[in-house]
Amino acid sequence: MLARALIERKRDGGRITPAEWRTLMSQYATDEVPDYQMAALAMAIYFNGLDRDEIGALTDAMLHSGAMLDLDHLTMARVDKHSTGGVGDKVSLVLAPLVACLGVAVPMMSGRGLGHTGGTLDKLESIPGFRTDLSLARATEQLERIGCALIGQTREIAPADRRLYALRDATATVESIPLISASIMSKKLAEGLTGLVLDVKRGSGAFLPELDRGLALARTMIALGADHGCPVVALITAMDRPLGRACGNALEVEESIMALRGEGPPDLMKVTYALGAEMLVLAGVATDRDDALRRMEVAISSGRAAAKFQEIIAAQGGDPKVVDDPSILPQAAECELYLAPRDGVIAQVEPRAIGRGITELGGQRTKVEDGVDHSVGFVITARPGDIVRAGEPLATIFAKDRAGVDTGVAALRRSIIIGEEAEPPLPLISHRVTEAGVELYD
Amino acid sequence: MLARALIERKRDGGRITPAEWRTLMSQYATDEVPDYQMAALAMAIYFNGLDRDEIGALTDAMLHSGAMLDLDHLTMARVDKHSTGGVGDKVSLVLAPLVACLGVAVPMMSGRGLGHTGGTLDKLESIPGFRTDLSLARATEQLERIGCALIGQTREIAPADRRLYALRDATATVESIPLISASIMSKKLAEGLTGLVLDVKRGSGAFLPELDRGLALARTMIALGADHGCPVVALITAMDRPLGRACGNALEVEESIMALRGEGPPDLMKVTYALGAEMLVLAGVATDRDDALRRMEVAISSGRAAAKFQEIIAAQGGDPKVVDDPSILPQAAECELYLAPRDGVIAQVEPRAIGRGITELGGQRTKVEDGVDHSVGFVITARPGDIVRAGEPLATIFAKDRAGVDTGVAALRRSIIIGEEAEPPLPLISHRVTEAGVELYD
Repeated sequence: MLARALIERKRDGGRITPAEWRTLMSQYATDEVPDYQMAALAMAIYFNGLDRDEIGALTDAMLHSGAMLDLDHLTMARVDKHSTGGVGDKVSLVLAPLVACLGVAVPMMSGRGLGHTGGTLDKLESIPGFRTDLSLARATEQLERIGCALIGQTREIAPADRRLYALRDATATVESIPLISASIMSKKLAEGLTGLVLDVKRGSGAFLPELDRGLALARTMIALGADHGCPVVALITAMDRPLGRACGNALEVEESIMALRGEGPPDLMKVTYALGAEMLVLAGVATDRDDALRRMEVAISSGRAAAKFQEIIAAQGGDPKVVDDPSILPQAAECELYLAPRDGVIAQVEPRAIGRGITELGGQRTKVEDGVDHSVGFVITARPGDIVRAGEPLATIFAKDRAGVDTGVAALRRSIIIGEEAEPPLPLISHRVTEAGVELYD
Repeated sequence: MLARALIERKRDGGRITPAEWRTLMSQYATDEVPDYQMAALAMAIYFNGLDRDEIGALTDAMLHSGAMLDLDHLTMARVDKHSTGGVGDKVSLVLAPLVACLGVAVPMMSGRGLGHTGGTLDKLESIPGFRTDLSLARATEQLERIGCALIGQTREIAPADRRLYALRDATATVESIPLISASIMSKKLAEGLTGLVLDVKRGSGAFLPELDRGLALARTMIALGADHGCPVVALITAMDRPLGRACGNALEVEESIMALRGEGPPDLMKVTYALGAEMLVLAGVATDRDDALRRMEVAISSGRAAAKFQEIIAAQGGDPKVVDDPSILPQAAECELYLAPRDGVIAQVEPRAIGRGITELGGQRTKVEDGVDHSVGFVITARPGDIVRAGEPLATIFAKDRAGVDTGVAALRRSIIIGEEAEPPLPLISHRVTEAGVELYD
């Protein structure tokens, strides 16, 4: 009877107390509260929201439904980065070794790709032998030893969140800022963090395209972190076009390796450095963002960041030779240039259409149970605003067969729009949000 | 994937096409659409509503999920009455035989009591032997023969509605006017009606206490009926106090029998005649409400209405002697007068508190699976506005034991409020709603 009363109260705009959240979520974990009641509650929350205390209580309830990394004995700061997801967003792969090699523990828990955005776990699993399903004990040991572990959300961590997330996905209640915030934070707090940097994407390819919704998410996450002793800083970054050039699992690993070796595309590097600087300052390792930037540039030019990635790969069962020789990554059977069909200006490189194209090539799931072809995808060199001539190469398609190439061509026709002029793209990094407020990013 | 897309669209204020409703509800019937998706959709509908076409399509989809009474071969009009439910509302028991004995077929499908309001099926089953679980074939045969059948919603009728109703009850999505309307109308259309009269209760004991919500329900039902060739007329009646004196299953049957024998309490008779007049005019049996009233008065004074009830009881396996001798109804072991605890004016006889009291005595279910003690309840002679003196009897408690009497006393203390003055009660019948609009009832 409790669940029904709480659904009714939330439906009518009332609030649920912390004790009620605890009971509700523990009954959900044991199936006393069925999915259909939780689905109705999620939709009521979608419409009527949760206040700061309610979000905190829901986060706690989900956090305490499972186990946590116990890292209090580590002398190092523990900082992670979370992105709301985008196309070509391989920042985690570069950032984790880069920050870890500078003396910050990075217990990074990532997800799989679903819908149009890719997932870090799928990308990492393109590396032959790489395992992301570490136990908490093994992840802890690896963090102690090499300062970084790149893992998935195990069954041990926040199981109530896991179940609720799958339910929200099936019931169109994902896009609720209180529910998003509690879901992210319950997992991040389970990592035992001392700080978190949030990359909130905006633009047509983002999960929350509108700036005001992204800022609301950032502010909610910052408040939630503050209430749990985990400072959060957020940057708002552009997802009106893919980040970097590579879009597709193995292709993005290759681009990340190049980035760690000092040859990353400028937009990817700029976002990586900006997020890394926030992490290093939060961790107390750098005195300010300029200091952090210098340290990161040295870490890359000296080869230390790439070496840390090798160390992580080796620790998680992967073949560390990949860092020196990315050609051992899965290679697509077919690759073909995509040429500009006409003269003009690149008006748009639409991330959602690119993401759907990767899915059509077999590189991304439509259902949780699906497998993934790591080799397929696109490398897109055309950028919005470029002036192009008919026949000039704009991208390369990587596919498993000739039919895949045709699929890829069709996807790029929909994605890369050539017109007479281009709208100015969104600033790559537009805002920085902290507890003190929102500032324009310089 | 269809369900998720439709939930999202309704969440965002869009509309669902008739073809989509058909597919959705047929997938719900076969479990392809799980309860949790339907629960999320119901909550989105609670917030964003359904338009006239959507309500019609949902009604059709639920109607066609099951079987219908095929009564087209009957030459008589088929008219039913539906009430939104209240405490002491035994109108159906009086009205069905009364209207049926005047040459109108009354295929009345009723529900069980749940929450604070009673259910016609529970009341009828106080009559020894009475069966409400007739097959559609048997109900049809009985309608042909004696012009009335008092049945429950069989498994054959609108199974999609049955399932959705139970889900709405568990997910706090009952109070949605589009969903209420589609649910009622899918069952009423399955009865093969040529007309329907709606008794929409208002006041503290009503399902929708506010007048404007009641009027909205009436208007929605009238539009829905018009779109399906079934004219609907609605009366708005008072449920700020119980209707009649008896509250409790067997007690209400006894009061109904007295009403059919010409000894009903005035408020019960006034509502019964008003609804009956609408039914007789809709059926074309009476030329106007005055003509209808005269016919009903004669039917009662001549004993024809009581005889019709006997005929119905006999046809459904019950003991028809009950009409002459109500003492064969289940009798409570204990009965005790409830005396006014102080001098004053009866400020309120609160129906919800009375309803809860009946439940506490065992006379009503809190769960669908519960059994019911038909004998228990209250007969309340005190009316709002009465001037009373301490020690004067206000009601009689019927209970299964002494502890029950104490429970009943406590319930009446909460229900019957004695103060210095009484708010004027709601007019017993305040509005009449037809396709032409709303008028004050005279």
